[in-house]
Amino acid sequence: MRTPSPDPTPDQAHIGVIGAGQLGQMLALAGISLGLRFTFLDPSPEAPAGRLGRQIRAEYDDELALEQLAVECDVITLEFENVPVSAVASVERHNQIHPGGQPLSVAQDRVHEKQYFESLGIPVARYRAIDSFEDLQSAIADIGYPCILKTRRLGYDGKGQAIIRSGGDLEPAWEAIGGNPSILEQMIPFTREVSIISVRSTRGEVAFYPVSENQHRSGILYRTEIHTDDPAQAKAQEYARHVLDGLDYVGVLAIEFFEHEGQLIANEMAPRVHNSGHWSQNGAVTSQFENHLRAILGWPLGSTACTGYSIMLNLVGSIPPRAPILALPGVHLHDYGKETRTGRKLGHVNVVADTKETCRKYAALIEQMIG
Amino acid sequence: MRTPSPDPTPDQAHIGVIGAGQLGQMLALAGISLGLRFTFLDPSPEAPAGRLGRQIRAEYDDELALEQLAVECDVITLEFENVPVSAVASVERHNQIHPGGQPLSVAQDRVHEKQYFESLGIPVARYRAIDSFEDLQSAIADIGYPCILKTRRLGYDGKGQAIIRSGGDLEPAWEAIGGNPSILEQMIPFTREVSIISVRSTRGEVAFYPVSENQHRSGILYRTEIHTDDPAQAKAQEYARHVLDGLDYVGVLAIEFFEHEGQLIANEMAPRVHNSGHWSQNGAVTSQFENHLRAILGWPLGSTACTGYSIMLNLVGSIPPRAPILALPGVHLHDYGKETRTGRKLGHVNVVADTKETCRKYAALIEQMIG
Repeated sequence: MRTPSPDPTPDQAHIGVIGAGQLGQMLALAGISLGLRFTFLDPSPEAPAGRLGRQIRAEYDDELALEQLAVECDVITLEFENVPVSAVASVERHNQIHPGGQPLSVAQDRVHEKQYFESLGIPVARYRAIDSFEDLQSAIADIGYPCILKTRRLGYDGKGQAIIRSGGDLEPAWEAIGGNPSILEQMIPFTREVSIISVRSTRGEVAFYPVSENQHRSGILYRTEIHTDDPAQAKAQEYARHVLDGLDYVGVLAIEFFEHEGQLIANEMAPRVHNSGHWSQNGAVTSQFENHLRAILGWPLGSTACTGYSIMLNLVGSIPPRAPILALPGVHLHDYGKETRTGRKLGHVNVVADTKETCRKYAALIEQMIG
Repeated sequence: MRTPSPDPTPDQAHIGVIGAGQLGQMLALAGISLGLRFTFLDPSPEAPAGRLGRQIRAEYDDELALEQLAVECDVITLEFENVPVSAVASVERHNQIHPGGQPLSVAQDRVHEKQYFESLGIPVARYRAIDSFEDLQSAIADIGYPCILKTRRLGYDGKGQAIIRSGGDLEPAWEAIGGNPSILEQMIPFTREVSIISVRSTRGEVAFYPVSENQHRSGILYRTEIHTDDPAQAKAQEYARHVLDGLDYVGVLAIEFFEHEGQLIANEMAPRVHNSGHWSQNGAVTSQFENHLRAILGWPLGSTACTGYSIMLNLVGSIPPRAPILALPGVHLHDYGKETRTGRKLGHVNVVADTKETCRKYAALIEQMIG
């Protein structure tokens, strides 16, 4: 790894981003306002963020492309956590990348992730690493039904997961997972799912957004509501601080929890800006995107305070006609400009209002439009 | 002019913008979030907005380039009012442009502008059109000292103006103006300068932002403060409504006034998003940039309500170190990414706070940093 330069990052810095999806696009929209320039590494010719800077069109493990990104930019980050750790290592030979290889290697493997949470005293569901069908059979006795089998690596939005409710589900689950190294987890009968968006800068400054209460549909986040006085805030913040400091983490980090009998049980972490933090674009003083950039540049973090009551609704598979949405005051549409495709995240709507009642009323109207 | 299409503008519309400066950049940053695409017409190889879309690099009066812009985009707008009216006319032969040729021809000529205000019963300073030095000499008797000589066309940020305090100033003023067709205006001993940002959509919906109190330095806007209960609001709004409706105007329009003995005296209008509305990016529910796009697309206008107390400070000639600025909560930096040059608008800072006291305190701190 290059010795960190004693020179501060230039004010009009050039940011390299691995991945050029909607998260990269929203990072760039926040960063261009701050005078930053962007180069993205992404193999897709239709990557949404590509139009907001230069795009190096190459695979994520293309050593030459990674070296180019590292050398041309002032600091590197990522919008996509399944970047090969080897790729991150080759960037680290030339320049700083935040988050770095260590947090990524933890977040990329569900077993390592659970072990890391446990090492910090953060509760997790009972789990067993699974390398064979025999492992699965013997682990069931330990974990019990219902449980959930997940690939250790490369899962997202509910992909690479199978629920096991009885012995008859074992073989189909193992097939669904493709027989890959996996993890068997106790299924938590949670009362709700919450997440916390936290951020830590190169200077060690930390900040936390209010926790969000999340609802999923078919494994994809659908709705996020912010409760500024959420009883889970203190504990979520304490856990997030342990995770951030333990990894000497830099940037935005999201942690998802199940809430069960008043206890927070860590489910997973995302070492990047996160869908459950999109509300902050319109509902917080500083968005998660701006704070991620401030963090990796060593700039002071911005206030994470709410500017009102917020609900975020994802637009998955299609975007309803926009006029009725935009007619509602305090409602903000974010359209990623992607081609329509079933199950694809195409955009989101942020509702911000002065009262929780108004916020929920408008969100309910938009949910009807989404159908 | 093409008959307006009965088809509604597509949701992910392609916007053509004449000019690609910082106003175009901020329009694009607002519009890309809404799923819009942008093409800019601008001769400069360093135009800030060029990186946020395609840029047709051509002069503003290049008929072929204008035709290309008109044909390729769904709707055309401008960020720069000194576009030749002939250029607008050639766009109008192919597509809709908002604002159109009529408002532009009024706004481009200070004499026509004054006449238009007068025709609506909006007070203006005493003035006389000047075509020769003899005109100037005879007009002085009518207008009196002090007065100000301005070119009729192509003035901005205090350029093309000369103050006349006595007979000895006459010749130097006429020389400063280059002997061009000009206007001699009574100098109003105003108590303050205010402006109103108004917006009218293709559907005739109108909205008004709270008036701003503006301070200039060397003819360039320096500081804007929003008073949500400003006593000038009702009158400014009434005048703006007359101007908008009278021109069948579409888009954002700014009108600057002098306040003198409790009366608003119209100084000039800008048929575009305006520097005195930049506070709305962080201090209003919907920014002037988003509302301009909503207006030209016929979408419902967004709420213009304030989210707090706002002050905007321009960064002219240089941008101070950003860390101390960003360390202040509720302070938002906008850096246009331009090269530093004396007298050039390089960015602005929006301060938003819950109380007027906090807002003014932070603004004062930033003014010290600006120096």
